[in-house]
Amino acid sequence: MNVNGKFYHTIWMEGFDIYMIDQNKIPFSFDIIKTTNYLQTCVAIKDMNVRGAGAIGACAGFAMAQASCNAPTDDVGYHKFIEKARRDIEATRPTARNLFYATEMVYDSALDSPKKAVEMAQMLALQDIEAMKQIGQHGNQLIRDGMNIETHCNAGWLAFVNYGSALSPIYVASQEGKKVHVWVDETRPRNQGARLTAWELLNEKISCTVIPDNAGALLMSQGKVDMMIVGADRIALNGDVANKIGTFEKAIVAKEFGIPFYVAAPLSTFDANCSSGAGITIENRNQDEVLRMSGVTPQGDICDVAVAAPGSTAFNPAFDVTPARYITGIITEKGIITPNEASITEILKS
Amino acid sequence: MNVNGKFYHTIWMEGFDIYMIDQNKIPFSFDIIKTTNYLQTCVAIKDMNVRGAGAIGACAGFAMAQASCNAPTDDVGYHKFIEKARRDIEATRPTARNLFYATEMVYDSALDSPKKAVEMAQMLALQDIEAMKQIGQHGNQLIRDGMNIETHCNAGWLAFVNYGSALSPIYVASQEGKKVHVWVDETRPRNQGARLTAWELLNEKISCTVIPDNAGALLMSQGKVDMMIVGADRIALNGDVANKIGTFEKAIVAKEFGIPFYVAAPLSTFDANCSSGAGITIENRNQDEVLRMSGVTPQGDICDVAVAAPGSTAFNPAFDVTPARYITGIITEKGIITPNEASITEILKS
Repeated sequence: MNVNGKFYHTIWMEGFDIYMIDQNKIPFSFDIIKTTNYLQTCVAIKDMNVRGAGAIGACAGFAMAQASCNAPTDDVGYHKFIEKARRDIEATRPTARNLFYATEMVYDSALDSPKKAVEMAQMLALQDIEAMKQIGQHGNQLIRDGMNIETHCNAGWLAFVNYGSALSPIYVASQEGKKVHVWVDETRPRNQGARLTAWELLNEKISCTVIPDNAGALLMSQGKVDMMIVGADRIALNGDVANKIGTFEKAIVAKEFGIPFYVAAPLSTFDANCSSGAGITIENRNQDEVLRMSGVTPQGDICDVAVAAPGSTAFNPAFDVTPARYITGIITEKGIITPNEASITEILKS
Repeated sequence: MNVNGKFYHTIWMEGFDIYMIDQNKIPFSFDIIKTTNYLQTCVAIKDMNVRGAGAIGACAGFAMAQASCNAPTDDVGYHKFIEKARRDIEATRPTARNLFYATEMVYDSALDSPKKAVEMAQMLALQDIEAMKQIGQHGNQLIRDGMNIETHCNAGWLAFVNYGSALSPIYVASQEGKKVHVWVDETRPRNQGARLTAWELLNEKISCTVIPDNAGALLMSQGKVDMMIVGADRIALNGDVANKIGTFEKAIVAKEFGIPFYVAAPLSTFDANCSSGAGITIENRNQDEVLRMSGVTPQGDICDVAVAAPGSTAFNPAFDVTPARYITGIITEKGIITPNEASITEILKS
């Protein structure tokens, strides 16, 4: 997508190097990070310089390829190195399905050669782009002119290599001339809604309003939300969806008001080895993400401030799991499906 | 309650002057504001130097008394002055029932004399203290040893003259030796939970953990919340409750998991002229409360930072209305009642 008139992907690989938009600095500054070995790339995933289901997946694939390029060339050393690299990469963000999908695919190619690993990683990134484009086309069918759509967190192009999942249908609808207004949940604690989703939508000139996460029920009770679309970090075979903390709460409230609640995600987000949400590991993150907040001072400096009572402790689960029964449908690159095992098994085979 | 070993009320009046703890500075600094005329006091209410149902009520009563003391002594001038003062005071926070209750009571006394107005304002503050003490006693009966209680916003002693509403039962339970753990919703956008409730509970050495508002459904789904208690800014005759934005969302989610959801409020919060929540005006506040956030820098300076994408707009409703059917019971100074018109009418008459 465009940033100040220039086209960017969220992440890409050239030679042995990985380049990514630093998502910890957006919207206050636009910087590209370069990593030259897989351990640096792991730090970037862990620290959320790159974040979002698809972007993490692409980054993990590139990291695996990078590891195979950096590995010793003797047979024993090579295998030992890439095995350790896979474990290191998979330890960075345990909830993200796309990460494991990518490491598995690229690891298998790396068993052949570093060249094959790089080709596979590049192909996965291209697949991500194509899948998101298709999600936009399918999801667009749900959007009527004049709709108010609420979204949680950022499942836009910054969360993938391009286009995005939850926002892709909105981009397509807007390109087709439909008027859409987006309620952007700010999405505490890391404010990916207020920082990233609002930034994306403002760049694309799509009408949007940031709201505190707390305002959802009020807006829904007043008939001001026609639909919710969110992304996903992992989807179990029965249709349970792990996504950013707060998604479950929104889904419950949407159901209470009869508001359609859609999840948009590529098939690489589905975990065939996970029968239900009970099997999904929820990542707990550092409490400082709740107790402190970064932003820009009136003087233009990025500054980190404490926002809670000194001495407080906080609980900071990064995700929750929304049971399938709260979800109206899942928008995939192969069409919109109902969240149940039969539909998911069928689409994964197709 | 105690602050660093010294006893304080949230607000008090000496002579013509009103003193209040500056709640915009807590927890980062502890300052007392003094206002010498009612217009200054109005600014303090509007800017939320004083906030919370009971504290606003007491402050409004003192402000009305202050106005009567400052008014011209000629009959026409006096009445004109106190009428205008009442309108000014009532325009500061339109949702807060206690404010209107106090202005009405003190205005009626001011029709007699400034001396009577001051006496009435002081009596209302004492009534607030006594009511909160009783709420603590009644609510304590709901609390079992070892309970996990979630609360939203701050309905502690800082929100009243002393004790608090939602936190008062927790203080009593703790004094009786029951072990209680409190999940403190941080309560965006103004973070009254993380700033004020956590500060109160830490001062009283009650176990507590700050959570992002988004984490409620996850904790409830895991059986980690036994009960919710929140405060109220206005209660309609049918039991609908206006309270801090996000309360409605929590009540829906609590109901979904069968978790008891209690509102604690003195009878002065009930509005006999308001038949249902539909009649309650919701105050919309400045969008900067969502788009910016204040906190303390690592160097110890209080600093205000932008936390959303530059150019964003935000919607900032201060309250929502939770319909009575989501509320298990209302803890008042005269006992715990079910939220319906019959019970409320009866208790208001008693």
